Amino acid sequence: MADHSPGATVEITVIKIEGTDQKTERELVVVEKALTVYVNDQEFTTMVCSPGQEKELIAGFLSSEGMIQTPDQLVKTSLDQEKGLMWVETTGGSVLGETLFLKRYITSCCGKGKTSFYFANDARLTKEITSALKITSRDVSHYINLLESNSELFHQTGGVHSGAFASHGQLDSYVFDIGRHNVLDKLYGHAFLNGIDLTQKAIVFSGRISSEILIKTGKMGCPILIGVSAPTELAINLAEELGITVIGFARNKRMNVYTHPERILVSDQLSS
Amino acid sequence: MADHSPGATVEITVIKIEGTDQKTERELVVVEKALTVYVNDQEFTTMVCSPGQEKELIAGFLSSEGMIQTPDQLVKTSLDQEKGLMWVETTGGSVLGETLFLKRYITSCCGKGKTSFYFANDARLTKEITSALKITSRDVSHYINLLESNSELFHQTGGVHSGAFASHGQLDSYVFDIGRHNVLDKLYGHAFLNGIDLTQKAIVFSGRISSEILIKTGKMGCPILIGVSAPTELAINLAEELGITVIGFARNKRMNVYTHPERILVSDQLSS
Repeated sequence: MADHSPGATVEITVIKIEGTDQKTERELVVVEKALTVYVNDQEFTTMVCSPGQEKELIAGFLSSEGMIQTPDQLVKTSLDQEKGLMWVETTGGSVLGETLFLKRYITSCCGKGKTSFYFANDARLTKEITSALKITSRDVSHYINLLESNSELFHQTGGVHSGAFASHGQLDSYVFDIGRHNVLDKLYGHAFLNGIDLTQKAIVFSGRISSEILIKTGKMGCPILIGVSAPTELAINLAEELGITVIGFARNKRMNVYTHPERILVSDQLSS
Repeated sequence: MADHSPGATVEITVIKIEGTDQKTERELVVVEKALTVYVNDQEFTTMVCSPGQEKELIAGFLSSEGMIQTPDQLVKTSLDQEKGLMWVETTGGSVLGETLFLKRYITSCCGKGKTSFYFANDARLTKEITSALKITSRDVSHYINLLESNSELFHQTGGVHSGAFASHGQLDSYVFDIGRHNVLDKLYGHAFLNGIDLTQKAIVFSGRISSEILIKTGKMGCPILIGVSAPTELAINLAEELGITVIGFARNKRMNVYTHPERILVSDQLSS
């Protein structure tokens, strides 16, 4: 078992801002791949993962769900890493019938533009964001500081993620949850129920920016996603295509702008 | 929208070790709840989340999946927070039929001992761990340092979680993934495929210890889970019941022992 899989990271170009300084650099980000798994010729699930050890991943998944009990029940696996497809042959398939509910939405890879969406619903429900919203780098730092000072629960317990909408120098709709995705769903639900227009707001978010987080942001129609943590390559590609500005590693006066930098004005002034 | 929901945290007792010093303290951990959602009287999904803003959570989830398009399509929600059940009434239910694949396993709450497992498979596939394995606090620090020095990819990119098995002063089966759960599945799959006995090994893990992480550890039969980050209350309760030693916030010489401390000998000597 190799420590680092080839293809686990990829170099991308990022704009690094600190205060009013900016420079363009090449930097590594992690690769995130969708893997659609067929068990005994039946579509079973689509998961997102780091490339490498796919056989271990699916063996662990099937055995931890009780669908196989011994290694010999995993008769064969074959992987098309390029297409993100894996075929698995098992014996003792009767258990499978009981537990086959992991498929999410209408799966199958459906291309839309350059990047592959891995769920049909995602391709259907996202559209390019054309908001002309612009904020300053100082705004970004300000919003991140507000999120941090609001995140008392995180500091007390280390166990939750948080997020909020940001506009006009303020945060609103602050939410927290143990689940990264739940934070986005709670934000989405709040905006949806209250008819909040998100085309002029940014989202500030404490967690890592994976493809699922990015896709939810796209569905909300929100043009700017500011994260404290790292984005994946797939999230960056989707953001590029959907017209979303992704900022990662936003901490104090520093931030990395990964996509659509035209919305970020480097300035030490708040825009509002 | 309140910043902090009542019931979001709970106080528990923890043994704090630093080097050879130890003390018992009360400390806050985050609450994690399973929420089973029925949509139009049909069981739809079970999710784990922080309590609070459940209506926003399910509204965001349904709207981001395209199952409702306008707030008035969410006709009614009612919540039994105690039992972790939510009933949702929607109009425009035809979309639901297409996309209803989120149910995992055979759901419904099934009590086993004091704690509720929220999936039947989990209750069926976990059993109490009685391993007599003991390690020292110095071992814990040593293993965490090894994991850190192995986690070059994390330090380069900030975007992956890692984990490994630990025994006799060494790590083996080092894995990484962008997904927390995938790390556990890759470890499980590796042990499963290679017939590795886990009753005498610990797992070291970079991510937060939620109930799902704990349950996977239990299914592996692994007696000790060492995490760099925080556990949730539900994970602690399940660990207590399943006989798993949970260590959180393990960094350098410090660590918090949450459950089954009898496996951890406070010592500045490696045990192997």
